[in-house]
Amino acid sequence: MIKIAILGFGAVGQGVAEILADRERIERWIGRYEVVAVADSKGSIYSEDGISLKNAIEAKKMGNLPEGKSTMEIIEEMDFDVAIEATPTNIDTGEPGLTHIKACLNKGSHVITSNKGPLVVAYRELAEIAERKKVRLAFEATIGGAMPLIKLAKRDLAGNEITSIKGILNGTCNYILSRMEQERLSYNQILGEAKELRIAEANVSYDVEGIDSAAKLVILANAVMGMNATFSDVEIVGITSITPEAFEIAMEKGYTIRLIAEASREGLRVSPRLVPLHHPLAVRGTFNAVLIQTDLAKEVFVIGRGAGKIETASAIISDLIDIYGDRTY
Amino acid sequence: MIKIAILGFGAVGQGVAEILADRERIERWIGRYEVVAVADSKGSIYSEDGISLKNAIEAKKMGNLPEGKSTMEIIEEMDFDVAIEATPTNIDTGEPGLTHIKACLNKGSHVITSNKGPLVVAYRELAEIAERKKVRLAFEATIGGAMPLIKLAKRDLAGNEITSIKGILNGTCNYILSRMEQERLSYNQILGEAKELRIAEANVSYDVEGIDSAAKLVILANAVMGMNATFSDVEIVGITSITPEAFEIAMEKGYTIRLIAEASREGLRVSPRLVPLHHPLAVRGTFNAVLIQTDLAKEVFVIGRGAGKIETASAIISDLIDIYGDRTY
Repeated sequence: MIKIAILGFGAVGQGVAEILADRERIERWIGRYEVVAVADSKGSIYSEDGISLKNAIEAKKMGNLPEGKSTMEIIEEMDFDVAIEATPTNIDTGEPGLTHIKACLNKGSHVITSNKGPLVVAYRELAEIAERKKVRLAFEATIGGAMPLIKLAKRDLAGNEITSIKGILNGTCNYILSRMEQERLSYNQILGEAKELRIAEANVSYDVEGIDSAAKLVILANAVMGMNATFSDVEIVGITSITPEAFEIAMEKGYTIRLIAEASREGLRVSPRLVPLHHPLAVRGTFNAVLIQTDLAKEVFVIGRGAGKIETASAIISDLIDIYGDRTY
Repeated sequence: MIKIAILGFGAVGQGVAEILADRERIERWIGRYEVVAVADSKGSIYSEDGISLKNAIEAKKMGNLPEGKSTMEIIEEMDFDVAIEATPTNIDTGEPGLTHIKACLNKGSHVITSNKGPLVVAYRELAEIAERKKVRLAFEATIGGAMPLIKLAKRDLAGNEITSIKGILNGTCNYILSRMEQERLSYNQILGEAKELRIAEANVSYDVEGIDSAAKLVILANAVMGMNATFSDVEIVGITSITPEAFEIAMEKGYTIRLIAEASREGLRVSPRLVPLHHPLAVRGTFNAVLIQTDLAKEVFVIGRGAGKIETASAIISDLIDIYGDRTY
């Protein structure tokens, strides 16, 4: 019996709960499990015997989770095998996720997270605790939502030397740029459209200034390419100054413009770059798209949905199956 | 100490030998190993203590491998843990690979193969033997060369229900179609170019009539989607009748033409289809490109090199690491 704690109960945590509520789907892969706690910053529902996920989702929909144990009390006082950490990201301090993840790893629980902050701030330290405690720290959901980039680069291409990873790591920016390409409207006009469609959040600066892409790039550089990079190592230019005229000129020459994050031996950078119109990285819409360049397999591209409640939750579930499932398929 | 036998020593077998000769690269992943035999239809080199891969590659370059044990004698008489089966494909009989693979699995060796024939003819039977004998049958290299499609669909997207797999599974066809798109020349003119560049083999009918794509599609349907399909279940139309005029009309509407193989609940088919010019499946050149459609992650595309000696060998190496390496990364 696998005991799971869900820490953080926003869209992603709820998405995970929805998928885990479908026992027929998941037990086929990992056998019997119970969720023993869900918690957010306001409250929690918990029971050593397992809680009703349906009730937890309902409670959250109606307002807050009931007051009860705090997240740290759950970590310290309850027995679980794996924590799903999905609290909001803070890439400056990593908190509160960083404290949660450290505490869970140190007590010998596996951790699966969608939270970039702790990994940007302290990847090496967290990986070392996990190794020492012989537990897994899995974070497919931190990059590219449902796009299985980390498993692909770290395991499916095992034996290859990865020489660079580059691509589109932010779906909001890609939506804006591909709409500018198609409509030749200004950045601000398209941004307004994106906000109306709820593709861009109210505070979009994190996306359009390249900060979100840079955070993901730091995780990729450290976790996949074995670097020891910090956020300040990334050269960052966002997309706010790109004009319709820039697209005009690019497209006359057969190019479009995309916000490309790249990690290679030359360093880490996020910047708008010309991409040939027929290139896989010229993908349109909210997709994420990444080119992994290796010495043997050469170019491998992966393209997928970079965000979305169920899409991101599905990456967490794939990590859970990776830890507990039959890996011999 | 892992003992490896390489059965079939054409381009792919030699590519594997070249990579395995780089011990520093591979031992990091799987620990110590020896290749105890390489064999092709004409001869073999073998030693229980391990052979020199460099000498084997040299011997093949100079002409034939020395006469010695036959491949079946090696399988029956020698001790090895894993066989790499890379003999030529025959999708009608599966031979000689089918007999080799059965014999290896039955004696309790893992099998890694790049040979489509045995899997098209007898996937279910081979999978059952592997399961009964508790060994692995791995075949990433049969589809999409270096593109890690099988691991991605079967494992990285675990927990998802795959509703369809569709895409470009033959690089030669894609080269011809994307050159027709760019140059508006006839099929025969571009085919001549492809033959000159050695992108198309002398006997190209296997590729351009859709047979190669259909064989790969049968493997995908059975191994990834849990179907029980045979080659005769695939509706097949090749690319030989596509005219420059067809491209003209398609492109006026914002489409191109690609040879698309698709497996879904509606059945299996390989046929030229319209693809929007800005779609990832409109990729140009010899690339393979596949869209995996799932219920949770939604669309996931993977694009990579579908052929090439080292590229295909790298897929075999990734299978070897998958069997013997530390899977917890």
